[in-house]
Amino acid sequence: MELLKQRILEDGKSLPGGILKVDSFINHQMDSKLMYKIAEEFVKRFKGCKVDKIVTIESSGIAPAIMTGLILDLPVIFIKKKRPSTMSKFKMFTTVVHSFTKNIDCDICISSEFLKKGDRVLFIDDFIANGNTAFGMLEIAKQASIDIKGMGFVIEKSFQNGGNKLRELGYNVESLAIVDDLSDCKIVLH
Amino acid sequence: MELLKQRILEDGKSLPGGILKVDSFINHQMDSKLMYKIAEEFVKRFKGCKVDKIVTIESSGIAPAIMTGLILDLPVIFIKKKRPSTMSKFKMFTTVVHSFTKNIDCDICISSEFLKKGDRVLFIDDFIANGNTAFGMLEIAKQASIDIKGMGFVIEKSFQNGGNKLRELGYNVESLAIVDDLSDCKIVLH
Repeated sequence: MELLKQRILEDGKSLPGGILKVDSFINHQMDSKLMYKIAEEFVKRFKGCKVDKIVTIESSGIAPAIMTGLILDLPVIFIKKKRPSTMSKFKMFTTVVHSFTKNIDCDICISSEFLKKGDRVLFIDDFIANGNTAFGMLEIAKQASIDIKGMGFVIEKSFQNGGNKLRELGYNVESLAIVDDLSDCKIVLH
Repeated sequence: MELLKQRILEDGKSLPGGILKVDSFINHQMDSKLMYKIAEEFVKRFKGCKVDKIVTIESSGIAPAIMTGLILDLPVIFIKKKRPSTMSKFKMFTTVVHSFTKNIDCDICISSEFLKKGDRVLFIDDFIANGNTAFGMLEIAKQASIDIKGMGFVIEKSFQNGGNKLRELGYNVESLAIVDDLSDCKIVLH
């Protein structure tokens, strides 16, 4: 997606440790029109997929996911990183995801009310790096017996290989911008 | 907002302890079209206000805020409940908010890059109850010397008084549905 790539080169920052800082337009301050265009691009790329609902994970996945839901007129469910007091322990799917950036384990959960056996799901998130969150989603999909029809990421870090691991498993993965290298504080796009 | 009120009465659940569960359409599973209509209503209610940006707080505020940003073509910044590793401690505004529902203190923060002195801000969130989060926003506004032009909430619990405290201080508060009573597992709307 050209517009996104240009924006990453203009406003993104490559920080030591392979971190791409895009908090001026993606994951802290958000460019709402760009989010809508990102959603249009997801809709285009997943055109052939019949989908019943969209699943994302809080917080930075919510904006691109809700825009995609708006265009496709589909409900959007966000996986929570903390179980709310109103969610019954006995009515949820849950798994543990390790965050390398924050170096913590995180329990992620989703109410079983909103994922029905056989549901066709499009998973949307802002980033895929090593793929830990995405594999957490696959674990939840297994528990819920749902069918992941597509996995869309705004930005993929190809050098951390999560996207390719998913592709090798046969998943339909689309990343709107692929970052090949962030060494020496440069940004090299695919 | 009639559509929202009807939906709360149809799909909301009143739980013991004054909790309104709306996780099938607002804050876990989200109805994307309803979110857009909520944003349209905010735009209508804050029509006279000149605003430079929208601020919300993760996670449930993001969907109504980004839709409002989309209509008004404004950037949307979400306050974080945890400082990301990419955010410098020396370049942020921060305060502590107590969550009564979760009974925890929470450090909330926003990068000072995205709030400039004199910015005219519309604050959007899903709920206002006792107003702790909103007062956290006011504290951040004071640190950043920004001007809160309006505060929009999808649902206000009037019996917890946060909305009225803000109105008494002179803030321009708009709530799209006001819940007067949740006792005995009933939902009484204003």
